[in-house]
Amino acid sequence: MKNVRFGSDKRMTRQLLFNAFMMNCVAHLAPGQWTAPDDQATSYCDPAYWIGIARTLERGLFDGLFLGDVIGVYDVDGGSPAAALRSASQVPMNDPFPLVPLMAQATRHLGFGITASASYEHPYLLARRFTTLDHLTRGRVAWNIVTSYLDSGARSLGQAQLVAHDERYDRADDYLALCYSLWEGSWEEGAALRDAGAGVYADPSRVHAIAHDGPYFRSQGIYQCEPSPQRTPLLFQAGGSGRGRRFAARHAECIFAGAPTREGLRRTVAALREELVLAGRTPDAAKVFAMFTVIVDADGHRARERLAALRARADLDGARALLSGWTGIDLSRYRPDDSLAYVDTDAGQSALASFSSLDPGKVWTVRDAVEFVALGGRGAVVAGSPVEVADQLQSWAEDTGIDGFNLAYVESPRTFNDIVELLVPELQRRGAYKQRYAEGTLREKLLGHGPHLASDHPGHALRAGRPSPLTF
Amino acid sequence: MKNVRFGSDKRMTRQLLFNAFMMNCVAHLAPGQWTAPDDQATSYCDPAYWIGIARTLERGLFDGLFLGDVIGVYDVDGGSPAAALRSASQVPMNDPFPLVPLMAQATRHLGFGITASASYEHPYLLARRFTTLDHLTRGRVAWNIVTSYLDSGARSLGQAQLVAHDERYDRADDYLALCYSLWEGSWEEGAALRDAGAGVYADPSRVHAIAHDGPYFRSQGIYQCEPSPQRTPLLFQAGGSGRGRRFAARHAECIFAGAPTREGLRRTVAALREELVLAGRTPDAAKVFAMFTVIVDADGHRARERLAALRARADLDGARALLSGWTGIDLSRYRPDDSLAYVDTDAGQSALASFSSLDPGKVWTVRDAVEFVALGGRGAVVAGSPVEVADQLQSWAEDTGIDGFNLAYVESPRTFNDIVELLVPELQRRGAYKQRYAEGTLREKLLGHGPHLASDHPGHALRAGRPSPLTF
Repeated sequence: MKNVRFGSDKRMTRQLLFNAFMMNCVAHLAPGQWTAPDDQATSYCDPAYWIGIARTLERGLFDGLFLGDVIGVYDVDGGSPAAALRSASQVPMNDPFPLVPLMAQATRHLGFGITASASYEHPYLLARRFTTLDHLTRGRVAWNIVTSYLDSGARSLGQAQLVAHDERYDRADDYLALCYSLWEGSWEEGAALRDAGAGVYADPSRVHAIAHDGPYFRSQGIYQCEPSPQRTPLLFQAGGSGRGRRFAARHAECIFAGAPTREGLRRTVAALREELVLAGRTPDAAKVFAMFTVIVDADGHRARERLAALRARADLDGARALLSGWTGIDLSRYRPDDSLAYVDTDAGQSALASFSSLDPGKVWTVRDAVEFVALGGRGAVVAGSPVEVADQLQSWAEDTGIDGFNLAYVESPRTFNDIVELLVPELQRRGAYKQRYAEGTLREKLLGHGPHLASDHPGHALRAGRPSPLTF
Repeated sequence: MKNVRFGSDKRMTRQLLFNAFMMNCVAHLAPGQWTAPDDQATSYCDPAYWIGIARTLERGLFDGLFLGDVIGVYDVDGGSPAAALRSASQVPMNDPFPLVPLMAQATRHLGFGITASASYEHPYLLARRFTTLDHLTRGRVAWNIVTSYLDSGARSLGQAQLVAHDERYDRADDYLALCYSLWEGSWEEGAALRDAGAGVYADPSRVHAIAHDGPYFRSQGIYQCEPSPQRTPLLFQAGGSGRGRRFAARHAECIFAGAPTREGLRRTVAALREELVLAGRTPDAAKVFAMFTVIVDADGHRARERLAALRARADLDGARALLSGWTGIDLSRYRPDDSLAYVDTDAGQSALASFSSLDPGKVWTVRDAVEFVALGGRGAVVAGSPVEVADQLQSWAEDTGIDGFNLAYVESPRTFNDIVELLVPELQRRGAYKQRYAEGTLREKLLGHGPHLASDHPGHALRAGRPSPLTF
């Protein structure tokens, strides 16, 4: 790979990684935009909509398409899902899994990440679903591990309320340990002989019973699936809290970071690299992606005008429903002009503190925060010409140490179309974006090694037919 | 529809329904056949394999493709999964769900049934997955409700052993009641306005919280998915026991019946029709399908020779592993020549009794039973010319009152190719098979009404935005 230098910067030009971030719903992180005449987001139940997007992303050499998921609805705001329903903010929403076989069949290289909660389903069932998808996609699947944050989801699943935050991560550690046993520890490499002459498909002496007896989950017996190309899907995580960061450093091979300012993101990335070392892994063992929204136009002025028009179309009731759900604070109880500092629960202070850091000289109000998240959620927004946006993305990467961007959409499918048509060629000209896909599984494409977990990953210890349960 | 009469029979010619019965694995009900040079069953991880089969079935106007599923492996035989692994008998096996979006995208009319257990996962998660598939397939999805029978599956999911048989059905009743509340009772018809001009996607006053508080499952809140074309997927069930039959009569719109003899099947069908009436439904409220294996060749003699060759290729160790798993009896503890009457547990007597009825004048041995199930499981086998096989299927339907056949494969994809090329045209000539698909959802195609549950179905009572939990 040729390393192009540009400007006066003597450092190697970093090739930026691109994920698209979507959800099997109408309005993911930009409520109100579905109402535009040329927006297709209401086609989310139509396979053709998803196939078209997947093909666009592959044409633009995106590394992956990530599908978010929540169980439950946003009913913190006003104690009701009414605002979310009216604005289609993540409700109605369907299961992300069934979209992946469709889109994989229409592409060859694009990776597919699926958000799935470690809170609600026995690990065996989720492990089997991922193995199946990894087989069908020939190793192009990633799991974004989440622990769920909506009380409404817990109630839908018959629980009185969510398990407490830190305990959710303790459960998730146990969940992962059991998944690793199934994916890595049951079938030895080569156990599937497929020897038609001898009439033997698998060698039973090389398929081992696992015996996981953890604090939360148990499983005993052989895994019923033969190993898929990656065995363990590529693992993503987005934990922002201290406990979440420790979890990410232990398990994740790619990490989503959410801070909307350079300084906040730089600190987050540095802290993640330190945590990776504390977890016994190399500091670059995980790629870090920042949430970002890009509005790009051949003419930078038109891009900014467009951004203003999109802001005007935003459904702020829907945005407030999302922000109330994310923070657990019913923001309908405050006036739009109330300062965020006045949102006076402990949870509120910490959940909303990041906004104040966006512009330390400004008093952030509830309205400011709602308007901010209405376009792209808690990620930064950049609008401009291809040159301007490329400059921004490169300088963010240089300043913060991230490896790439998790790109939200505002208009669908226009946001990604524009990025593919206008921004990607500009980044390629600079040597800051791949010219073609690498071969191999998603892990090999993204991390440069694989197809299986690296030797410093805790799941690796379970390989070689000597399964023993992990404990953390 | 034109009703053709044939022979001296004055009754209306019955149009037979055809389901294909498969599983996301190498050897479903015919262990050993994967070893033939032209067999493609080892391609089960390749999307092209499934797409090819789906297109063949649609060319042959099959009503549906049914995917079986088990959680766990067949380890009753010899107390180990060794025989199942060597013969690839339902292990390795992947999740059936991800195959459906792939195959649906390659077809327009074919229905897709998925076997899913009501034993292991919270109803909310399964309901959401079915709703998603019903959206993506435009209403072509069916659920084959099972309650699981392998102890190994229970152990894999961290339970000491299976819940007792009858209690599994009590749980399943509660499971279904909750699913109906989600599918039928949360979103009123028309609640999704999609009114871009007014900026309103859904009318919150027409989306209702459900409050299910059953003996086994609870759920509280609105359903996060908007209604799919069928709302409730078409419901299949295969309960053979008295309790299972009562469950089927209550919920099923199509029923799989397994008796391998005409007289046994006739009695089963009559009992099912009576149970339907007892459940407050019409006797023909559910279509009944019989498990069958067909070997057809233009030359009937060649078909019978082929059947003999297939029997010679059968892997009897694999078949014994399957039969031991189905009956719960470790058949490796008996000699092949032992009479079935000698298999001396209570469970064994009842589980194996159906074989003796196949040929009452014969002493059935363990070997006989294993050889029988080695080709097509517990269903009947017919080999012959298109005329001979069509005669057989029609006379079985006339004699027993079934509506159609659930056709297992022996060679893949040859079994279904031959049926489509040779048998379907012969049945069409007789007016005993459709000439084209009906329009509409799978429910409308198969039952002639829909797209939603009929008014005498218990799930129907939950419609119209007045959700109240069902109890049985």
